[in-house]
Order: sequence, then C-alpha cells, then structure tokens
Amino acid sequence: MTPGLAPAALAALVDAVGADHVLTDAEVTAGHVVDWTGRFRGATPAVVRPRTHDEVAAVVAVARAHQLAIVPQGGNTGLVGGSVPLAGEVVLSTARLAGVLAVDAASGHLTAGAGTPLARVQDAARAAGWAYGVDLAARDSATIGGNVATNAGGLRVVAHGPTRAQLVGVAAVLGTGATVDDLGRLEKDVTGYDLSGLLCGSEGTLGVITAVRLRLVPARPERVVVALGFGSMAGAVEAVGRLRRALPDLEAAEAYGAAEAELVAGHLGSVPVVDAPVTVVVEVAASTDPTDGVAEAVGALDGVLEVHVAADGPRRAALWRPRETITEAIATVGPHHKLDVSLPADELGDFAVEVERRVGEAVPGARTWIFGHLGDGNLHVNVTGVEPDDATVDDVVLGLVLERRGSISAEHGIGTAKRAWLGRQRGDDALATMRAIRAACDPDGILNPAVLL
Amino acid sequence: MTPGLAPAALAALVDAVGADHVLTDAEVTAGHVVDWTGRFRGATPAVVRPRTHDEVAAVVAVARAHQLAIVPQGGNTGLVGGSVPLAGEVVLSTARLAGVLAVDAASGHLTAGAGTPLARVQDAARAAGWAYGVDLAARDSATIGGNVATNAGGLRVVAHGPTRAQLVGVAAVLGTGATVDDLGRLEKDVTGYDLSGLLCGSEGTLGVITAVRLRLVPARPERVVVALGFGSMAGAVEAVGRLRRALPDLEAAEAYGAAEAELVAGHLGSVPVVDAPVTVVVEVAASTDPTDGVAEAVGALDGVLEVHVAADGPRRAALWRPRETITEAIATVGPHHKLDVSLPADELGDFAVEVERRVGEAVPGARTWIFGHLGDGNLHVNVTGVEPDDATVDDVVLGLVLERRGSISAEHGIGTAKRAWLGRQRGDDALATMRAIRAACDPDGILNPAVLL
Repeated sequence: MTPGLAPAALAALVDAVGADHVLTDAEVTAGHVVDWTGRFRGATPAVVRPRTHDEVAAVVAVARAHQLAIVPQGGNTGLVGGSVPLAGEVVLSTARLAGVLAVDAASGHLTAGAGTPLARVQDAARAAGWAYGVDLAARDSATIGGNVATNAGGLRVVAHGPTRAQLVGVAAVLGTGATVDDLGRLEKDVTGYDLSGLLCGSEGTLGVITAVRLRLVPARPERVVVALGFGSMAGAVEAVGRLRRALPDLEAAEAYGAAEAELVAGHLGSVPVVDAPVTVVVEVAASTDPTDGVAEAVGALDGVLEVHVAADGPRRAALWRPRETITEAIATVGPHHKLDVSLPADELGDFAVEVERRVGEAVPGARTWIFGHLGDGNLHVNVTGVEPDDATVDDVVLGLVLERRGSISAEHGIGTAKRAWLGRQRGDDALATMRAIRAACDPDGILNPAVLL
Repeated sequence: MTPGLAPAALAALVDAVGADHVLTDAEVTAGHVVDWTGRFRGATPAVVRPRTHDEVAAVVAVARAHQLAIVPQGGNTGLVGGSVPLAGEVVLSTARLAGVLAVDAASGHLTAGAGTPLARVQDAARAAGWAYGVDLAARDSATIGGNVATNAGGLRVVAHGPTRAQLVGVAAVLGTGATVDDLGRLEKDVTGYDLSGLLCGSEGTLGVITAVRLRLVPARPERVVVALGFGSMAGAVEAVGRLRRALPDLEAAEAYGAAEAELVAGHLGSVPVVDAPVTVVVEVAASTDPTDGVAEAVGALDGVLEVHVAADGPRRAALWRPRETITEAIATVGPHHKLDVSLPADELGDFAVEVERRVGEAVPGARTWIFGHLGDGNLHVNVTGVEPDDATVDDVVLGLVLERRGSISAEHGIGTAKRAWLGRQRGDDALATMRAIRAACDPDGILNPAVLL
C-alpha cells in the first residue's frame, strides 16, 4: 500500500519544487521504489525532483516542518537497499541536479551536479585533457552524487584510491537545514573540519549532496593489458604486490578463478582466455609506451603459468571481457547472494579457499563464485543456490571476514542490508560516535532513517 | 606565571602515565610552551608523555574527570599557535608514541605512531619499495600525527594531494573518551562515517591521534628538475597548468619572483639561477627517464624566457636551492608577518601583483615577498617591516584573498592565529555545524579549547 501524505505537506512540497516535479501517481513513481536487482522494494507517497540547491533546501525544510522522512536517490544502482523508500519515505531524486557545471583545466578540478552520470564526468574530464580516477561498470546510470555519498570504489582504486580520494568539496543541505558550500574549495585549504569528507560515504544520512567538486588525475594515454595465469590466489596476490611496486602506472589488477572462467566462457560460447587456476588481468596506463617495462616486470615474477599481452584496443577489450562478463554469467545460474568484502593482502589467498569450503559445509547445494579487485583486496563473493538475503551465508562469509581482519563492505556500503553487521566491524565506540554526529547533522532523523545506523 | 594543578589531578596524571612522564618543572617544560618562531608563548602546569594509546585514553579520562584542558603536541613546528598551551592547558606530548609500527609492502600501507617524524615515515616507505606522498621542509621534526591533525600540505600536493589524500585510518581518543580504531582499515572499506577523515585537519579539537595508517605511492626513481623563467606570475600559472596535463609525472611546481631571487642570492653570496621576473622550478619523477618528455613539453610552452635542466643529484639540488632558502633569507630582513593563502588558478597572477600594491599602500615601509606552490595555487605571502601579528596586514591580505575566492589558510591551519577569520571564509552554517560536531566528539571542551572554534 502506498503511504499517504498530509495535504499540507503535499502543498508545501509543490511549493518547494513546482507541481510538475512532485510525482505521486503510483505508476509514475514505480521505478523509484525498487532497486535495479528487485531485491529491495518499498513504497513512497511522492517523488520530488528539485532542480537547484535552494530547491533541495526547501524540500528539507518541508521535511523538517512536517516530519517527513526523505530518501535521496541518484542512479539507484546500489546493492544494499540504501536508495529506495523501504519505510515509506519521500524520494528526493537528484535527476534534475544534473550537468557538468565547470572544468578548471589549469588546476584539474571539475564541478558537477549530484545527478550527473559518472560517464559524463569521465567524458568532460577527458575533453579537458585530464581523466577522472574512478570507474565502475554502472558508469552510465550511477550518478556522481551517489558515488560520493557511498564513497564508490570500482576498478581503479589500486591506482587512484576510492571516490573519497578524488573529492575536493561538495554542496549539500544537512538535516539541520544548514548548507555546506565547499564547491569553491581549493586544493589546499585547511580551514576547519572537512564537512565534505564527512558526507562522503555517509549514505545520505547526514545531508543531501547537491553538487560535487572533484580532483582529476593526469591523462596517461598509453595502455597495455596483460592476462596472467597463476596456480593459486595466494600466488596471484603476491605477484600483484610485486607488480604494483615495479609498475607505478599500474591502474587495475583484477582476478577470477578457473570455475568463473569456465562459467563465463560457456555464457559467451567461447573458451577461457587463460587456462590456469587463477587469472589476473592487469592494466598499465602510462604517458609513454609501457610495453617494455611491463614485459620486464612480468618476467621477474615467480609462478606465472601463462602470459597474454595486448596493446591495441580490440585485443585489450578481449582480455578484459571475461572479467567484465562475470556478473552477467552468474545471474544466468539463478538467484544468488552477493557479498562484497575486502581482506588484508596476506589473508586474501587463504580466505578465497576457506570461504568456499565453509559455505559448502554450511549450505548444502550452495556454490561460491569469487572474483574481484585483487590490487586493493576487494573480493566479490557470489553464492548461487540460495536466496539473495540468505542469513546463513551472511553469517559464514561475513563472520570469516571479521575473523581475518577484513571489511564486511568494501564498496557497496551498509544500506539497510548490512546494518546488523556494522557494529560487529566498527565496535561500540565508533557506533556511538556516529550516532552523535548524526544527531548533530540531522537531529530530527529525517534523512534516510532506515539506513546505516 | 605557571598555572597550577590540583594535587588530585596531578596524582591522577601520574597514575595514568607514570611519574617519570609527568613533567612539571618549568625549566623542563619550557620547550613545550612556546612555538619554534617564538611568536606564541604560553604556560603549562604539566607536560604528560603517554607511551601507548591506552595511556592517552587514561590521560583524557583524567582531563574529563578533573576538567583539565589538553593541548596535543607533536613536533611543535606549526605556525598558527595550535600546539602550545596559550590558556594554561596541560600539554600532551606525542613524543613517546613514536615509531613505524608496520609496513604492508604488498598493499602499500604504512602504520606509525603519532609521534613519528615525517622523515622516518618517508625512509620506511622507501625501504619497502614505495614512497610517501607528502614532503615538507620541517620533515625531520614535524610528526606524522601532527601532519594528519593539520592536514599538512607541502611540496608534492600537486602530484599526490594533501595529507588527507594519503590517510587510510587513525587510532585516536576522542574528547568523549571513545576510541577510534581504524588502524586495521583496508583500502576499500565503506562501513559508516569516516571518523578518521574527520579528525584529519581538526587541529586536535576532536580527539588525540595516537597512530596513523597511510597509503603509500609508487616509487618513481627517475627525476628531472627544470628551472624556467617567465615574464609574469600569470604567464607562469598558465604554463604550469599546461605542464601538469602534458607531464602526468610532474611532482612539484614552485615559484618565486625576481626580488626573492635577488634576496636569496645575496644571502647565499651567489647570483640568481634564473634572470627573469618569475622563476618556476618543476620536478618530474617518473619510472623511466623523463628528460625527452620534459624537453618536448617545455618546448611547447609560450613565454618561456630561460630554461635550465638538471638530471643528476647535485645539479637538481642547485636548481632547488634558491626556493628552499627563501624562508631563511627573509628571516634575515627582520621581523615579518607570515601568511599562507591559496587562490584559484585564474586569480593567482593578478593577486600576486595586487597584494603587493595594497600592502604597500596600507602599511608604509612594509615590503611583500611572495613564493610558493604554484601547481596547487598556494602562495606564501611574507611581509617584512611589520610585526608578526600585524592586524592591518591580515586585513589587507586575507581580505583580498576572500575577494578573489581564495582560502585564508592553505596549509598552516587556523590555530589561534586565524580564528577570527574562520567564519568569514566558511560562513555561519559551516561554523554552526562544526560546533555541533565538536560538541558530539568533545562535549566537555577539553581538547585544544583555544584553537579553531
């Protein structure tokens, strides 16, 4: 059942953003109440679509006055139920806060509205002679505001760090109604607390981000991709650690196993690119042709079973394709539970073996698929043969992660899905501090109340 | 007069860290009550020197129980009076929280006690085949905990960002007594608010940082230094913007004027390296010899009056020497007021001309010296012929900075010196939010109460 909204509150929202941008028809709002996987489905009395920072401030003021809860929503590409109205909240869509607002080519800073798709940010950076340091598969629909609110990771973290490392400042409206205005912030500015940084990764619980200012990275146009075969995940981790030091321009180091390679090959109607227990795909992006340096660094590694090198575009894409097709291939197996964890480098290899064993023991019929970002310790653990929210799988996988000093959420966030696990990783002191900060920034608890804390 | 301490409070401090590490003798504490420039001098009833995180927690507990104010103090190399007991606070020295605790060579993370000098962090990173992304002139005495607490900038920000961009996590004791324990944090970890990031740049007002975990950068061993002459600061800014895009491995871009070059040459008994209105020193650090690429990029610039290239160590040092000697040379002129500001790239050139004109008009006999980090918009404005805290100079220089959308503190912080200016840059909303966050983390106001807010 769709939750209701008092006439006075509805009128105030219309006043804030205009009648055309307060959507209440259930058919029109349907796309806003469910996440893209269909796992998280809620209901909303209204979707509001402010066009400016001031309109967002007006919506927050209405929410405070009428005690309405708000869920900020960007591309809605999340995986943890953080951007859908699971408790009947009003949805604040950032769709109209879109567009690249400015590119300062001299200092390498880019400013964009929160609703701008990541791919448009990347394009604008390239057009100015720079690059943006973050890339993810959902680049065409994920928004830059959502990226900042969730501290998005992705494929290039090993080279440039997560979204937080790209962030110069944001414009945002806090739950108190206060405006954070760091869009004019410069690279060097030490004038009090980093409110923008605090908003990064806060999953919409402290403020609504309306625009962001990002630090770009230099464009390194010469690229080489190498696919390497290893006998074990532990051997692959060791090799990637060496490659990172030998190749300062290493931009990605991804891995998957033989089972995943076969699954993908079956899905694509091809054969695996690499015939080895573990495949590692490495990309190096340099300002001058890196082929010789890469060959030398790979030649110095131990335990390499196979090497494939690609310098031109189509062959690079061919080496990447299996890795990029894994999620799609796993979906063809049937319902599955997605977990996204990170481990210390010295635990990664053993974890990959142990998690498969423990899941197999605990859940008969379950099968574990592992792939991920080896350079930064982030593994995606997908378990087929179970429902997407199977609690036993959570217990086994996340329990093992905490045993091995890892993180229960490497890049997907906490959302509603992992709320019960947050305290187990961060501890009571951190939870109490986060609650106090939330009370300072959103004392009425109107922003994403079902998420995180 | 040295402020007193109630016997019960003194006994509790002794209980917390041991009698040998509660220093009360004024002769012994003398070095802790004044900053290195002599501009900020206070008094303290005691200097405590905890050795562990738990001992810091015990000191904070005593401070809360006895309502003592604390000033955390690292290398005491700051310039804004942020680490000396100006209001009779107890000094918490991090001197014994020193040492590199761990280097994870595979993932490129380094963990060190707060009291570890920056230079030791740099050395340990190099020994593990990595580099640390921040460098400053005070590297031998400035501590890594102080660097994080003040979000230190320095010479490499153009390449690697400020200290905040290197930070993975900290261990800290908040004013509430809560422990932040992010020392085990991994590169990818999206589990709630970034408490470590919030502490970075908070100048000791939210918590006492006891240890830090840092992200290292790849070592790029091949270096070239180029000194270039330009006709104006505006031309130099334009050229540096182009060089940053053409040379992804550009690691520093510093500038000074002809008057500064002559002052330094007089001090060193030599002649200026470059005979031009503005000198720019650029360093490129790459994995393979960057000389050809640098020559090509410099050749494509407009308005270059002179070029000097150095690839070997001694010649590189010779090109750097004037820039590194400016502070020392200015000190020989007499008392002076140091300001540290940043400007948008498109304002830098005009600002440099205008600030000299306005200071000259407002303060007869004053002389302005300008140098700094051109790649990141950070200029050090030194005014001789006035006292170090001349308010007219503050009004003229910082007023102009705010007119031109700059920052009143690029890397020195706010401390006590610029407190009156914080609100003028950040605005009422940001100040109110900072106060609310401070109340959440340090409700009794025991940590650095005279600083920032």
